[in-house]
Amino acid sequence: MRIALGVEYCGSRFNGWQRLRRGRSVQACVEHAISRVANHEVTVGCAGRTDSGVHARYQVVHFDSTAEREPRGWVMGCNVHLPEDVAVLWAQPVEDRFHARFSAIGRTYRYYILNRTARPGVFAGLLTWECRPLDAGRMHTAAQALVGSHDFSGYRALGCQSKSAVRDLRRIEVSRQGELVTIEVEANAFLHHMVRNIAGVLISVGNGKARPEWVGEILAGRDRTQGGVTAPAAGLYLVAIDYPDWVSLPPPRRAAAPWD
Amino acid sequence: MRIALGVEYCGSRFNGWQRLRRGRSVQACVEHAISRVANHEVTVGCAGRTDSGVHARYQVVHFDSTAEREPRGWVMGCNVHLPEDVAVLWAQPVEDRFHARFSAIGRTYRYYILNRTARPGVFAGLLTWECRPLDAGRMHTAAQALVGSHDFSGYRALGCQSKSAVRDLRRIEVSRQGELVTIEVEANAFLHHMVRNIAGVLISVGNGKARPEWVGEILAGRDRTQGGVTAPAAGLYLVAIDYPDWVSLPPPRRAAAPWD
Repeated sequence: MRIALGVEYCGSRFNGWQRLRRGRSVQACVEHAISRVANHEVTVGCAGRTDSGVHARYQVVHFDSTAEREPRGWVMGCNVHLPEDVAVLWAQPVEDRFHARFSAIGRTYRYYILNRTARPGVFAGLLTWECRPLDAGRMHTAAQALVGSHDFSGYRALGCQSKSAVRDLRRIEVSRQGELVTIEVEANAFLHHMVRNIAGVLISVGNGKARPEWVGEILAGRDRTQGGVTAPAAGLYLVAIDYPDWVSLPPPRRAAAPWD
Repeated sequence: MRIALGVEYCGSRFNGWQRLRRGRSVQACVEHAISRVANHEVTVGCAGRTDSGVHARYQVVHFDSTAEREPRGWVMGCNVHLPEDVAVLWAQPVEDRFHARFSAIGRTYRYYILNRTARPGVFAGLLTWECRPLDAGRMHTAAQALVGSHDFSGYRALGCQSKSAVRDLRRIEVSRQGELVTIEVEANAFLHHMVRNIAGVLISVGNGKARPEWVGEILAGRDRTQGGVTAPAAGLYLVAIDYPDWVSLPPPRRAAAPWD
């Protein structure tokens, strides 16, 4: 039987999602916990392979198991065997043709920037800090140049392994609540470092160091070396995965605050 | 010259505010940083001596220095010498009669409860988790029995050193945004563990384990041993200090999210 899980984690003390020879990975923690509950070895597939330091409020994974457990049993059992920086939110049986990654038709990320003179004291590692005043309206307007199906070579990491750099960016919104500036971006999929590269360019536009037109110029140039600074991982959260109608999973919780 | 500082910190890795023989204290970190900037030994007074694990979004401290620095110099200098879980938000010269603690006429705390089936994965240590559904409206109504000037012996820690248990509780509000339930409480001052004891009782009322009348019965009984469980420190934030009109300090940022 194939099971899907909703997973939340704090990326600060992980070397990213993917299981590696060295370092702590979310994947290894999740596979260990499920295997303990299932009583057999389990391998998981995930919807979005987050980088080192990147957080997830809504990651989706799937696995196959011969064990019969109630959804509640998977959730409670896994959470007992997971460290405090990873939690399973829900579990649900899915059709065998479901694949967390290949069935997904959309991903949404949020990028949080604390915008004030003083660096964060309470939420270090959980958001990015920018001390120069950001004009969120200017960032939002400039960002709209990215919407649509484009070759995002100008916004992908030099080492990115993806064959095609074309992605369909469906929505990007920049807003401010008090000292917090949030970038929310939705696409069919993302290239390596794509959100952080977009955030880096938008921060430069927001603090006045760069012209708004630069956003579109980098896109048109398709040359990463002409792009801006990659914004830090700390501010980045995977917040939603979209699937077609034949998949019915519990929806992500969307609201202004990262934990709401 | 006397200087006031606004300070923010994450209490998770501190043994509370107060300097102790053993363990890490916020006070020792702040005094060390100021002393480095001032070039002489500095001792600070604070408005609210928070316990181990309790956070502050707005703590006020004062100190005397012979050094002449611009406010910006104190802020930037201190933040260079502080660890990542403490930050100075602002600095301001104050009259010699100002005392962070004795001049204060009010304190406001917030208590954050993540109310859902699964424990937190991203914000462990930064909020309290309650898996049973909480009725925030019922909690809010029940809490109103605490408003006014009362002997709060029923809500203070057994080891509390304060001579009088009378406090003027001016306002208590319980609200929900999505999965987050927030208790905000304002008083002239608080007894040891008072907010966490109130939160513990309100959680029991909210999840249906206790009757709403119990809130007032504990107050009337003035007997801590008849009270409820002390709620964990992780959910507690000092968010505002009020001073009389002759003191003019930068205001706290008040909004729904803990970092806003």
